[in-house]
Amino acid sequence: MIPNSPHWLWYPGDFELYHAMKQNFSRVERGCSWPAFWKSDAFRNRVVFRRIYNLPEETTFYVTGVAGSVGYVQLDEEKHPFGVLIFASPGSHRISIHIGCIGCVPSVYVSGEMIRSDEGWMVEDYASSPVPAAYNRYYTDVSRDPSEWVFSETVYEPVSVEELEGGVLYTFETELTAVLEVIGPGCPVVYLGESRSEALDTQNCYFFCRPDEVTHRCPRQAMRYAYLPDVRAKDYSVRAIHQYTDIPRRAFFTCDDEELNRIFEVAAHTFSLCSGCFFLDGIKRDKWIWGGDAYQSLFVNRYLTADAEIEKRTLLALRGNDPVTTHVNTILDYSLLWIISLGVFHESYGDESFLRDIYPKARSLMELCLSQRDENGFLIGRERDWVFVDWADFDRDGPLCAEQMLFAEALRVLASFAPDIEQQTWLSLRSELLKKIDLHFWDDGKCAYVDSFCSGKRHVTRHANIFAILFNIADDSRRHLLAKSVLFNDDIPSISTPYFRFFELEALCRLGYLDKVLQEIKAYWGGMLRLGAVTFWEEYDPSKPLEQQYEMYGDPFGKSLCHAWAASPIYLLVRYFVGLRPLTPGGETFEADVQAQFFRKLDCTFPMGQKQVHICLQDGKVSVESKPYTI
Amino acid sequence: MIPNSPHWLWYPGDFELYHAMKQNFSRVERGCSWPAFWKSDAFRNRVVFRRIYNLPEETTFYVTGVAGSVGYVQLDEEKHPFGVLIFASPGSHRISIHIGCIGCVPSVYVSGEMIRSDEGWMVEDYASSPVPAAYNRYYTDVSRDPSEWVFSETVYEPVSVEELEGGVLYTFETELTAVLEVIGPGCPVVYLGESRSEALDTQNCYFFCRPDEVTHRCPRQAMRYAYLPDVRAKDYSVRAIHQYTDIPRRAFFTCDDEELNRIFEVAAHTFSLCSGCFFLDGIKRDKWIWGGDAYQSLFVNRYLTADAEIEKRTLLALRGNDPVTTHVNTILDYSLLWIISLGVFHESYGDESFLRDIYPKARSLMELCLSQRDENGFLIGRERDWVFVDWADFDRDGPLCAEQMLFAEALRVLASFAPDIEQQTWLSLRSELLKKIDLHFWDDGKCAYVDSFCSGKRHVTRHANIFAILFNIADDSRRHLLAKSVLFNDDIPSISTPYFRFFELEALCRLGYLDKVLQEIKAYWGGMLRLGAVTFWEEYDPSKPLEQQYEMYGDPFGKSLCHAWAASPIYLLVRYFVGLRPLTPGGETFEADVQAQFFRKLDCTFPMGQKQVHICLQDGKVSVESKPYTI
Repeated sequence: MIPNSPHWLWYPGDFELYHAMKQNFSRVERGCSWPAFWKSDAFRNRVVFRRIYNLPEETTFYVTGVAGSVGYVQLDEEKHPFGVLIFASPGSHRISIHIGCIGCVPSVYVSGEMIRSDEGWMVEDYASSPVPAAYNRYYTDVSRDPSEWVFSETVYEPVSVEELEGGVLYTFETELTAVLEVIGPGCPVVYLGESRSEALDTQNCYFFCRPDEVTHRCPRQAMRYAYLPDVRAKDYSVRAIHQYTDIPRRAFFTCDDEELNRIFEVAAHTFSLCSGCFFLDGIKRDKWIWGGDAYQSLFVNRYLTADAEIEKRTLLALRGNDPVTTHVNTILDYSLLWIISLGVFHESYGDESFLRDIYPKARSLMELCLSQRDENGFLIGRERDWVFVDWADFDRDGPLCAEQMLFAEALRVLASFAPDIEQQTWLSLRSELLKKIDLHFWDDGKCAYVDSFCSGKRHVTRHANIFAILFNIADDSRRHLLAKSVLFNDDIPSISTPYFRFFELEALCRLGYLDKVLQEIKAYWGGMLRLGAVTFWEEYDPSKPLEQQYEMYGDPFGKSLCHAWAASPIYLLVRYFVGLRPLTPGGETFEADVQAQFFRKLDCTFPMGQKQVHICLQDGKVSVESKPYTI
Repeated sequence: MIPNSPHWLWYPGDFELYHAMKQNFSRVERGCSWPAFWKSDAFRNRVVFRRIYNLPEETTFYVTGVAGSVGYVQLDEEKHPFGVLIFASPGSHRISIHIGCIGCVPSVYVSGEMIRSDEGWMVEDYASSPVPAAYNRYYTDVSRDPSEWVFSETVYEPVSVEELEGGVLYTFETELTAVLEVIGPGCPVVYLGESRSEALDTQNCYFFCRPDEVTHRCPRQAMRYAYLPDVRAKDYSVRAIHQYTDIPRRAFFTCDDEELNRIFEVAAHTFSLCSGCFFLDGIKRDKWIWGGDAYQSLFVNRYLTADAEIEKRTLLALRGNDPVTTHVNTILDYSLLWIISLGVFHESYGDESFLRDIYPKARSLMELCLSQRDENGFLIGRERDWVFVDWADFDRDGPLCAEQMLFAEALRVLASFAPDIEQQTWLSLRSELLKKIDLHFWDDGKCAYVDSFCSGKRHVTRHANIFAILFNIADDSRRHLLAKSVLFNDDIPSISTPYFRFFELEALCRLGYLDKVLQEIKAYWGGMLRLGAVTFWEEYDPSKPLEQQYEMYGDPFGKSLCHAWAASPIYLLVRYFVGLRPLTPGGETFEADVQAQFFRKLDCTFPMGQKQVHICLQDGKVSVESKPYTI
């Protein structure tokens, strides 16, 4: 994509690091700000943009630096300040724009007929080789400040206004990420809730605030309900200004099962709310960019918006700068998932240039991992690393099997886009590792991979076995054994988190247990709908009534009611039931292997890279059409 | 030094990195901001302060985060926002203060009877082990913003107001770093100059501005003269608010030679102007923190203020963070000088704890250097490194001899404060290196070290030979040969920069040529005084009249007229003529070997670490007294 109009330019990744910090520092919990607890890599503060022009005629240009920056423009030997019209004579000219900025990303905008900030500028950071300057589609206007993320706005009026317990409860039709505007006398305290119960519980409510005296607005916050105690409805006018990132939705799913249709819609709404500048885990909590959550979002996003840009922003935000010293979100497995994510991204978009640019960061992250191998070559955590995998009772004595599965897959993915000369290194490491995994972790008697070979307990959890299925580490015959010995074995503790449940459901799909998966989708996600959910939750326990669903982490309203990973039915339905998948990176060729046994009718549209695919099933007949996507 | 009152706390080095960026981005040249062109290491954006208290009784405390920060206070399991009174019951409590900040250093201030931000807090950055939190003496008041450096102010009225060329020229008694206040109609353009000629030359003047409409003030700037064109003197009231860092001067030099007394005074004034938050090269230009200039400032500062704090701030600002990827100011020799600086600092103050804390950064910088050795073990530059040494015509074919001399000295210094277990590594490397230097660079025929052994030209410059003398790389007999074969050999190109002239003068002192050095001090620095200098210049050519002194780097007013390195007579006079030097680190024991042949009378006071030393020479008798220094 070569922009014709000028864009704001910055050093690749710096925009993402800056906005990631803003995002990761934005969580608020009962008046306490809670900045994310990992190393937040900083953007560069001093860069220089360079370009050589060969001008057919005289021209002028004008350079704007981002607010708070200092710098100058050098045209050949002449220096000019920012913000003045500069004349350039015909002929060859060397232009450099020097900029420093402490508080935000040093970004420049060049306006002019011939000399402008479009494709072709290089940028240097005084530590590494020049690279092409970066930009994005949201910042084409010089008056748009790249330090502020761009939200679109829609105004929502409340669908109900109730006088309750001496105050007023405002209900909106669905969950929003909104700035609440409260017009009326004074600045009454506002209690916001994802649930009605939360807004009314002024003690335990997650978020409260007073509207600003001048603007009458509250900070942007996840909410469906707003409660104002001690006021009368007639005195106030309240509305919600929903602020969202406008990423066009490209997927529409209609089948003969209304429940599935509704699940798809609510999942799409949930996912859209969680897609801002980056993929977030949830919109009320944590509002952080987590590598594991983002990994799962890639699968959903491929089939819902196919917007490569949010994926690139998220991947850049997660990874930080070189030299790398800490793991993604401090979590060893998230570093591996980050590398694996690049493979998922590649499959979705076939964007070779992004992979080429990011390869050095993938390699150095892998090198950090390689520096943490034990005497068998297995990956182990360092003192400050978090070896997570999942909230589960693993036997954590020595290297953990699930971690090694991710390690093997990360090596495979890295090899898949490494320069030819480095491919073999990664593949050899992988095949060595696979042998060791087999030798140490596979238990013939249990027909399963055990967590640990050090303790002698031979303890089996589902996790490593699920990864072995998903990443084709277990061969075909072993995969089918694992269904019985692990997946359908009630003696193995069941997966307790929806995060890992996604991996398990996909493993079941891979093994052909679609019946079982569909049943689960309708029970679990359908169950939330039956309780009135308008967005899907971080977690759901079918055995509990609605009023007991909000508690989590020991907090009565701790649960996020709008959580990205809960949108996974989109992926599962499209990938395995509609059967749509790219056969080549970017989906230039693709397959639609519709599992007609599950539907009487289908009328669906999904993105496949640059194409829109229309799939119908009617009277037992499947039709598949594709055409280029245009906005 | 254990502070009793609370201080603002931050992660060690972050305050310095932030303010160094502000400093290095503050240069302005004819309306063009010119941020320093090297990698500006960023401060950490997310840290956590921790401390355990065992409280005898109930107490309260209050945490303030720096403006723009977000975070919370955790008292055991309870979370509290910043800015609220927190109660702590008697007994043991674990307190952590979590803070994130994008635009400035995440700093906290804790007020309370028992719980307060004094000595004892640890801080973590999520990438390395906890370290003691840092603070400095300027930030003890919660209302003082650690994002702003603290200046003291003195108001100067002009000593002359002249109507000239249709405008008014205001002259101040000396050079200042001042905010000019212009009270009168409108906001006339102001031209500032270090020299009268510069202020009057509205085309070529380095700095011009319009006073702010509300405050009537110009930005802080180096100046002695201010010219307002097209105004009448009676309409305006102009004064200069001099803003400076208040570092008490502890040195007073009086001898029977009035010229030397005046040189000492002007050097002290020059040096004081160049000592802000950090040692600067000059106050008009570059206003940057350069490792080579700072190195020389350490010698002067030891004998003028003995303020260890500005030295620590400067050393931290120059070095940046680990992992280190670039050299100090991009200059390979400045990295080596930075390590050598630690030895100078240690000699001055004997501050073992600073050296212990900074050793890992010294080691990693040395490791970066070690990674750049050629097959002989000599240090060579990488693609983006600047191998500087001096502005001189070196034979730069292959490794440069002067660079290896610095390398050897840096290894010696590093060994001097390394943990026992690592000392031998550095010393072995050094002795290997010395052998190789001798083998490849020493030329018996020329009685000198040659620049390069690769080209075959056997070209001799003074630089490597001067370092060989200063760092005792040449043995005693060879050092004395070098005087004749290099220092007093007119066939060897003379040193052209005052920067390196310092090293040469010290080498002459070391070899006992004090006569020659005194002659030079009186000719060169006395020469500037005779031209009316009120501060010492970046460079001085005795052969030119005053009006031709201002040009440098092809710019008619490019020369800095107040330059730190020009203060070196302070060091040379005290160290070699008064003969005062520490014999043990910090000057607990010291020597005052007064060279009485140069003076009839002396009445001097100098700092020696924590002591003030009073030295008198009267009637051929020397008396030396010392007493503890108290402010």
